Amino acid sequence: MRIVALGFIVLWVFHFSLLYSFSYARIIPRFPSSISTPEKLSLSSKNKFYKTKYFTQILDHFNFNPQSYQTFQQRYLINDTYWGGAMENAPIFLYTGNEGDIEWFAQNTGFMYDNAPHFKALLVFIEHRFYGKSIPFGGDKDVAYSNASTLGYLGSTQALADYATLIINLKDNLTATDSPVVLFGGSYGGMLAAWFRLKYPHIAIGALASSAPILNFENITSPYSFNNIITRDFRSVSKNCFQVIKGSWQQFEDTANQPGGPQLLQKSFKTCNNRTTGSSIVNWLSSAFIYGAMTDYPTASNFLMPLPAYPVKQMCKAIDDPMTGNDTFAKLYGAANVYYNNSGTATCFNPDDKSDPHGLGEWTWQERRSNTYQNTISRSISSVSSTTQSPTRAACTEMIMPTDGNDEESLFPASQWNYNDRASLCKRFFDIEPRPNWITTEFGGHDIERILKRFGSNIIFFNGLRDPWSGGGVLKNISKSIVAFVEEEGAHHVDLRFSTNEDPEWLRDVRQSEVKVIRRWISRYYYDLAHPSS
Amino acid sequence: MRIVALGFIVLWVFHFSLLYSFSYARIIPRFPSSISTPEKLSLSSKNKFYKTKYFTQILDHFNFNPQSYQTFQQRYLINDTYWGGAMENAPIFLYTGNEGDIEWFAQNTGFMYDNAPHFKALLVFIEHRFYGKSIPFGGDKDVAYSNASTLGYLGSTQALADYATLIINLKDNLTATDSPVVLFGGSYGGMLAAWFRLKYPHIAIGALASSAPILNFENITSPYSFNNIITRDFRSVSKNCFQVIKGSWQQFEDTANQPGGPQLLQKSFKTCNNRTTGSSIVNWLSSAFIYGAMTDYPTASNFLMPLPAYPVKQMCKAIDDPMTGNDTFAKLYGAANVYYNNSGTATCFNPDDKSDPHGLGEWTWQERRSNTYQNTISRSISSVSSTTQSPTRAACTEMIMPTDGNDEESLFPASQWNYNDRASLCKRFFDIEPRPNWITTEFGGHDIERILKRFGSNIIFFNGLRDPWSGGGVLKNISKSIVAFVEEEGAHHVDLRFSTNEDPEWLRDVRQSEVKVIRRWISRYYYDLAHPSS
Repeated sequence: MRIVALGFIVLWVFHFSLLYSFSYARIIPRFPSSISTPEKLSLSSKNKFYKTKYFTQILDHFNFNPQSYQTFQQRYLINDTYWGGAMENAPIFLYTGNEGDIEWFAQNTGFMYDNAPHFKALLVFIEHRFYGKSIPFGGDKDVAYSNASTLGYLGSTQALADYATLIINLKDNLTATDSPVVLFGGSYGGMLAAWFRLKYPHIAIGALASSAPILNFENITSPYSFNNIITRDFRSVSKNCFQVIKGSWQQFEDTANQPGGPQLLQKSFKTCNNRTTGSSIVNWLSSAFIYGAMTDYPTASNFLMPLPAYPVKQMCKAIDDPMTGNDTFAKLYGAANVYYNNSGTATCFNPDDKSDPHGLGEWTWQERRSNTYQNTISRSISSVSSTTQSPTRAACTEMIMPTDGNDEESLFPASQWNYNDRASLCKRFFDIEPRPNWITTEFGGHDIERILKRFGSNIIFFNGLRDPWSGGGVLKNISKSIVAFVEEEGAHHVDLRFSTNEDPEWLRDVRQSEVKVIRRWISRYYYDLAHPSS
Repeated sequence: MRIVALGFIVLWVFHFSLLYSFSYARIIPRFPSSISTPEKLSLSSKNKFYKTKYFTQILDHFNFNPQSYQTFQQRYLINDTYWGGAMENAPIFLYTGNEGDIEWFAQNTGFMYDNAPHFKALLVFIEHRFYGKSIPFGGDKDVAYSNASTLGYLGSTQALADYATLIINLKDNLTATDSPVVLFGGSYGGMLAAWFRLKYPHIAIGALASSAPILNFENITSPYSFNNIITRDFRSVSKNCFQVIKGSWQQFEDTANQPGGPQLLQKSFKTCNNRTTGSSIVNWLSSAFIYGAMTDYPTASNFLMPLPAYPVKQMCKAIDDPMTGNDTFAKLYGAANVYYNNSGTATCFNPDDKSDPHGLGEWTWQERRSNTYQNTISRSISSVSSTTQSPTRAACTEMIMPTDGNDEESLFPASQWNYNDRASLCKRFFDIEPRPNWITTEFGGHDIERILKRFGSNIIFFNGLRDPWSGGGVLKNISKSIVAFVEEEGAHHVDLRFSTNEDPEWLRDVRQSEVKVIRRWISRYYYDLAHPSS
């Protein structure tokens, strides 16, 4: 359960990659299966979807020592199918890449493709340094991830400066200096989009920051918020479902500690091998609840996993199934099947599988992680500290997001967020000291309404209230042009996904509202461009 | 003449320090001699003026490698004489230190002292890293300035992050979290104040950026602007004065190249020793014109040098003096006396003196500078390249400000701004490659009106049109709350100086207008604080 505590989107995906798996195959990201319009189908050829390019990027923008002048190849994807061109000053829709392979984000940000034709927009997706194929130090991951001296260049401010540099250069090359740039980003990418608009207003005219928990730092958001939203998601679907899950943790612990208990758990959850611990199973199951809640989309999807529509409802349906009687493990096995076996073809599960289909996890120093799996299930369940999980690097530098507290109401066992635990974990794993106040120092967060009502413009913060990250999002309009779109039924950056014929009305509506706002930004930009002295 | 070309305020002070001097003494910065009110006199005791404190600052905010965690002691000055205190949320007036000893700036920013009582403001002056006593690497200048690996940490973005970190920490320590911070800065300090407000609106509610040439980058401002303003200053006072100066350069070259010429020049300008070259004299004289124009204050002052009121007028008066007939060198000697010998006590001059009274010049790699003085006067005068002068470090990293072009109209010999000359010079001196586009990438500058009319708030840009830097300043109102105060008679950040009984009406007026705007910022801040949901 402490999984998420350690992290962020960067981290949940990492932890996710740590924990989920089929025994039989890696998952290859693909487009949502529900896409059905001819135009969208024609995009299914990757080559038509985008072209891959590279930009020679500087290693350290904020330092002038000799090492800082080193360069690396930063990948970006570009699609000019719909672009009106530089002569028209046609807009550029640009995705600020987050913690993973940029192709994965491009393929899961259909909103940009859906709207490009109407705006005659150029589409650009920039990969975040240290992810995917944008690896400093000669592209050699073994070197780039090897130690603190190389990994030290991984951070949000460097990433934003990368984007600034690349965008200016790209526009120059396209002689599109006056084309307005509109930013899009989800999750950590949404934070980057919002921050970029705030820090580089001379480069982007506005940002759609979807599910960007920019307030999940320090004490701005309650450390119980994240897990309480997951709790609410399950409880709202079925009180019984909630109670079964909540009651199961003690049962796991009791079982794991009794003779033959581990074997019983392996059998109950059909693990592929007999070395899987109860602790692994608990983490694997928790991940299904956490990421199921995060991706509780109203249509079938394949972002983190191939999932049916409304996966929380489906998991609870399995748990509530009268056929399983009072057999808690059978009920939870049913829920696990919803999350980990959408295709129904898995014959056994491997909760220890650490494979990573999205090119995200490499930068966590994998070799130092192995010793964390020696913990007993009892510690895993009842310990309030985070010591049962390894942190990721970002979680040990700037992304100190207190999300893993559990109060009495929580679906998960009660636990406290404790910064010192994180700090000592980071010391132990990476010999690094976190900078827990850096993000709010650099980007703000405290009293955001008071500050941004008098400063800045053109940001949309989208949040779906089913998304556990929404607790750290901006949920109220701040000014006329810094606005919050909040959808009770929404999950993690659902608005950015490809539209489908099955989308509920609220989703169509919110996307339409977003488009309307973006259109206003662009219109005003063109007006200003045409009236320089007004 | 190419002096200024190489630089900026950072640089002009450096070049200034290179070039001016009396033979007999260093100049100790002191308060303007014209201060006469009893309250101001009571401030003349330094201990009452401010207390000196130090803050443990991190070496690199934007990198997480082990070296970045090193710390240094950053000096700041604080005066709470007038402060209303944290309970009242009384404001903090804060100076964003520029390229020099912070005590020097505190002593030359009387505007903050003059107004603190009316605002019940706390006064804080933060020193810029690598200057004065705020030296990284254990405070050891020999280490800090020794090479590119240590000097690499010197830059504007690091400085801004220093200020952000220090301010948050200071407010926490004073339990003054809700006290509004208003920024003040002149010249490069003014650029930092404006940029800080744009980048850290959550930390400062507004900025008075005085004589901040934030547009003197790339091709935004003409490279002839700087010297043409100096030209206009002299020409507007006296056409004859302008003609004498303009005609003198050829005469210098002719004289230097004829037998006995150098000796004649030494005698004409009363140099203290017979090794002084014609080139040195020309540079020394040019500096008097450049810095005389920059500090062409309406009252007697002592910022760079002790000077009479209106030094340009005084220099031209000497040049126009009929007593000197047609003797150009005698005329120019008279002008030099105005600038370099206000007290009238100097018996000879030493144009080669490189002493530096303001703690600014140390970070230029002094030892590499010596070989630049071998140039012939002819090269010094006629070469269009900047190779006759050594660059400062900042002029070779980010502060690439094209200011040293001279067109036909210029007071100085015609010359072109040439980036490649700068780049090769930087390569030669520091083995470093400039990043000429970095400042506009990070802070903007192009189309500033179009961008900031829709983004940001609460900045005053003051410029005096006699100041050669005003050509790179913001001279038009951008929005309701990003405003330009432009004074035809004003010189370099004259508004920030202590008020005196001799101040002309326009200067009193502009200061009053600035106070009015700042009062509005603070009132609105208090209103917002009291009405969180409005």
